Amino acid sequence: MFSLIVEPRFSETDALGHVNNTVLPVWFEQGRTPIFKIFTPSLAIDEWKLILAKIDVSFLKQIFYGKEVEVKTYIQSLGNSSLVVYHEAWQENLKVAEGTAVMVYFDHDTQKSKPLPDDIKRDLEAHLISV
Amino acid sequence: MFSLIVEPRFSETDALGHVNNTVLPVWFEQGRTPIFKIFTPSLAIDEWKLILAKIDVSFLKQIFYGKEVEVKTYIQSLGNSSLVVYHEAWQENLKVAEGTAVMVYFDHDTQKSKPLPDDIKRDLEAHLISV
Amino acid sequence: MFSLIVEPRFSETDALGHVNNTVLPVWFEQGRTPIFKIFTPSLAIDEWKLILAKIDVSFLKQIFYGKEVEVKTYIQSLGNSSLVVYHEAWQENLKVAEGTAVMVYFDHDTQKSKPLPDDIKRDLEAHLISV
Amino acid sequence: MFSLIVEPRFSETDALGHVNNTVLPVWFEQGRTPIFKIFTPSLAIDEWKLILAKIDVSFLKQIFYGKEVEVKTYIQSLGNSSLVVYHEAWQENLKVAEGTAVMVYFDHDTQKSKPLPDDIKRDLEAHLISV
Repeated sequence: MFSLIVEPRFSETDALGHVNNTVLPVWFEQGRTPIFKIFTPSLAIDEWKLILAKIDVSFLKQIFYGKEVEVKTYIQSLGNSSLVVYHEAWQENLKVAEGTAVMVYFDHDTQKSKPLPDDIKRDLEAHLISV
Repeated sequence: MFSLIVEPRFSETDALGHVNNTVLPVWFEQGRTPIFKIFTPSLAIDEWKLILAKIDVSFLKQIFYGKEVEVKTYIQSLGNSSLVVYHEAWQENLKVAEGTAVMVYFDHDTQKSKPLPDDIKRDLEAHLISV
Repeated sequence: MFSLIVEPRFSETDALGHVNNTVLPVWFEQGRTPIFKIFTPSLAIDEWKLILAKIDVSFLKQIFYGKEVEVKTYIQSLGNSSLVVYHEAWQENLKVAEGTAVMVYFDHDTQKSKPLPDDIKRDLEAHLISV
Repeated sequence: MFSLIVEPRFSETDALGHVNNTVLPVWFEQGRTPIFKIFTPSLAIDEWKLILAKIDVSFLKQIFYGKEVEVKTYIQSLGNSSLVVYHEAWQENLKVAEGTAVMVYFDHDTQKSKPLPDDIKRDLEAHLISV
């Protein structure tokens, strides 16, 4: 599991008084940074190896300004050339949101997906969610 | 169907050179404005009647800066107290993304969902997607 | 003068109930798109010729969700290798914000500024603010 | 001085490969959180006492994804009912951006500014920049 602590920003709230729903995909993307590093340790853009195929987010509770949020990120499953990431956002001991992201291992030169290398698979497996 | 024309903003691109994935939920939320108006014609925040329960977005093609995007928004289905909205984003005759949003008719005073009123249901039905 | 009509997005409001201050630089950058096109008609990123040196924004009135905003963009002054852009945001016949942006004509290969070409200067002069 | 460590988000980069300029006002607003707390220790929105009158940002260096940024925030000067905040952003021992924010002590009920209370002034003075 990868943990990210987020301090909600005032600019991330909306007129209903809580964190706006469009912020969760931003936090969850930031929660995937350690996964980006497994694929591209330098985080150099010209060596980027992933594309995002799909995301979903379920909004479970209102998220408040002024209180830290922990984003927990797990590997949900590994395919041949793709992986499913599972995220949870927690605030004050409540799960306030959850979601997944389907990412594809991608060759930006050929514009095609390719099989996950074994060493990367091993690194990712260490973060598989145990249900 | 509701149509929204979006001009991608430079600040909405990312280092991979295209529109960042986190922008789609923002455009899709803006695409729901006519639906917000069916529930709250004035768009007054203190009369807001909806909460968002879930979203998903599938990223089908790269989205380019410098070319208009059309966001098409439909009602996919109507439940007792909720509705599912379906969005498509089109750029240069290609569907570049699609997604759904589950919204719940909500009483912010009692913090409970409540049945969709008949007149609102009728207004929404006019925008049901015909498959 | 260049005119851009913006529909404030729900995600652009904040918990105080109005458009958040950090949104104005985003709108003003979008208001500079026609200026970007004078320098790079295709808007192709690999032919980009400008960098931003400084911005300022004055917040004059609250900006409301649910009402259109017009962003008016002018050339305030032209230097040897730079230009100052002046922006105003108007909502319901009130000037709600104003600001400037200092942009530099820049060679991304040599990482140096260079003099504004005469033809670009002429195009920009047509949009000089007349006080 | 107040210090905030920011990890640039992938969604905060733009097509030129660096952090987009519109992100700096967001980081600087987050850098003012400890100042917000001096005015409203609970950070409760309905007790908010500040409005933002003006910001400026100077962009000194490109800001890279993948490397931490420190936002340093100081009180630059104190007026009767307003204060000027000074921010710097540092990445890898380089000052990459700087800016100011003029904030006004404000009564949201009467919609008027009012003099800074003495105890708040004392708390703010402890963070005055010493040139």
